[in-house]
Amino acid sequence: MPGEFEIIRRYFAPAAQPTSSVKLGLGDDCALVQAPNVDELIAVSTDTLVEGVHFLSDIEPEDLAWRLVAAAVSDLAAMGAEPLWLSLALTLPDSDRHWLEAFQKGLKASLQTYDIALIGGDTTSGRLRVLTAHVQGSVPAESALTRAGAKPGDLIYVSGTLGDSRAGLELLQDTSARVYQALDNQVRSYLINRFLRPTPRLVLGKALRGLATATIDISDGLLADLTHILERSGVSALVNIDKLPISLQLQQMSDDAQARQWAATGGEDFELCFTVPASRKDEVDTLAQTLGLDLSLVGQVGLGSGLKTVYAGALWHREAQPGFDHFGETNATCSE
Amino acid sequence: MPGEFEIIRRYFAPAAQPTSSVKLGLGDDCALVQAPNVDELIAVSTDTLVEGVHFLSDIEPEDLAWRLVAAAVSDLAAMGAEPLWLSLALTLPDSDRHWLEAFQKGLKASLQTYDIALIGGDTTSGRLRVLTAHVQGSVPAESALTRAGAKPGDLIYVSGTLGDSRAGLELLQDTSARVYQALDNQVRSYLINRFLRPTPRLVLGKALRGLATATIDISDGLLADLTHILERSGVSALVNIDKLPISLQLQQMSDDAQARQWAATGGEDFELCFTVPASRKDEVDTLAQTLGLDLSLVGQVGLGSGLKTVYAGALWHREAQPGFDHFGETNATCSE
Repeated sequence: MPGEFEIIRRYFAPAAQPTSSVKLGLGDDCALVQAPNVDELIAVSTDTLVEGVHFLSDIEPEDLAWRLVAAAVSDLAAMGAEPLWLSLALTLPDSDRHWLEAFQKGLKASLQTYDIALIGGDTTSGRLRVLTAHVQGSVPAESALTRAGAKPGDLIYVSGTLGDSRAGLELLQDTSARVYQALDNQVRSYLINRFLRPTPRLVLGKALRGLATATIDISDGLLADLTHILERSGVSALVNIDKLPISLQLQQMSDDAQARQWAATGGEDFELCFTVPASRKDEVDTLAQTLGLDLSLVGQVGLGSGLKTVYAGALWHREAQPGFDHFGETNATCSE
Repeated sequence: MPGEFEIIRRYFAPAAQPTSSVKLGLGDDCALVQAPNVDELIAVSTDTLVEGVHFLSDIEPEDLAWRLVAAAVSDLAAMGAEPLWLSLALTLPDSDRHWLEAFQKGLKASLQTYDIALIGGDTTSGRLRVLTAHVQGSVPAESALTRAGAKPGDLIYVSGTLGDSRAGLELLQDTSARVYQALDNQVRSYLINRFLRPTPRLVLGKALRGLATATIDISDGLLADLTHILERSGVSALVNIDKLPISLQLQQMSDDAQARQWAATGGEDFELCFTVPASRKDEVDTLAQTLGLDLSLVGQVGLGSGLKTVYAGALWHREAQPGFDHFGETNATCSE
């Protein structure tokens, strides 16, 4: 069995492609990195995935690495930041060679895809797999996207489609279920991949600099995440559940009510939810065309506080599933 | 029971004292921080503590927070860096109010002591307590201390005293043991505190800029950590076990052989081990006086590779305890 230092040398050092801002990488007390130029701020975020909570024990290590990196990078996208550096803290029950090799494969590929450099971390042993990614990026000081700028009258948009990730998790959790068996292979793969390999909306985030008044990535579910924007901005919102973008694949898997529920509360789609002044609607439409990415108008910001949801002209009530809260009563992902 | 967001609001936000470089703290997708000036590099390090591996389940949460912060900050000291920002990933089995309150107390006090700002993190649930601190600091590009610069002929120094932390752990593990009972209260407290609340040598690290040719903090044990310097620098070393600085307190607790063993291999003292050109010995002596901190000359760097240890003029053999390796055969800290 390889030891801790051997693990780093064999599995992580080869994944650490040097970039120009990394002056000293793995293997010392600290990494040394060169900050971006003085007009830029550094955006910093931390994401932890816990076995049995955020992922099933039998997940492919390659997928797990992708998911970890993608979920963390998604927070950079939500700030309009460009990825720079990633540190990785891995707690593992053993140093299984096959697991580490597969993990490294997914790690290397996702780091390359998002152009982010692995600069360090810590590898420890523990009964439970716990993985923490710490990511950093750069964003011009004046144009960082936060949750705090939404104004009454602003339009509320979401990118891509919602609910797919939740559907993919459902499929993974019971491959013997009738719904799994009944689905077309390609549809099944699409939904499962939306859960396993979400796409952080980095290009969109960058394009929203100077356009969006508030932005968040959808990790806990649209309604839960939008609520964070409302609270930080001191505003209310009305969301049209009819307008939530639902993929053809999700429509094939579930009835309307279920699909809407997942789109509104499912979480982990890692799409962006953002607000834009109503006067700039045309710019969003143009952006959607330029990027070839659906940007759906799903609601509007109002005065006061609170979030109201309507469907087919009547008030819509979500099921008791208010998004992901680790210590709350419900748990939108898998159970512990 | 408080939920995830409530935990952040109630226990972590009050510990996050804003500093001038923090433009946006807790509560958004990312924190936003202002990089130091262009002549400085950012030093980045990650440290994980796992329950049952790095700490006992019954450790006081206040002590645990101190230890986590101190151990992480120690890596900054070893680079000659000044602390800037800390992110915290906490995986906890529950959201026990008393535990969180006590943890916050230690966190707040240690952050203030080391003048480092809490800027973010992630709080998740899991069967096992796993805590990861990610720290960042700044250091002038030209004077960062690494493990790579030791040259044949350089003198090898260690700060403070060694083996105390290992002794403190021993005492904590069995308070009914005869050695525990026999010790004077003050001596016992001293040794236990050296384990629970180690002192990162930040002032020394900064003073060693431009003086030390290689530096490391002693977390895995002197011999294990010095080996990292030797490997990175491509040199060998001879260490005089007679010269290892051993506290009066440790001498009261254990016989000579045991004390030497712990001083050489015990780990987690978080003192600095560093190399200095022989021609600059006087400067080290002056520095020790200025800082009021023992800096002990324990060996010398040589050509070739490998680490030789001598005691009373003869070769000295350490017991089969080669420092802390998480996935290795031995485990110098507590067992899983």
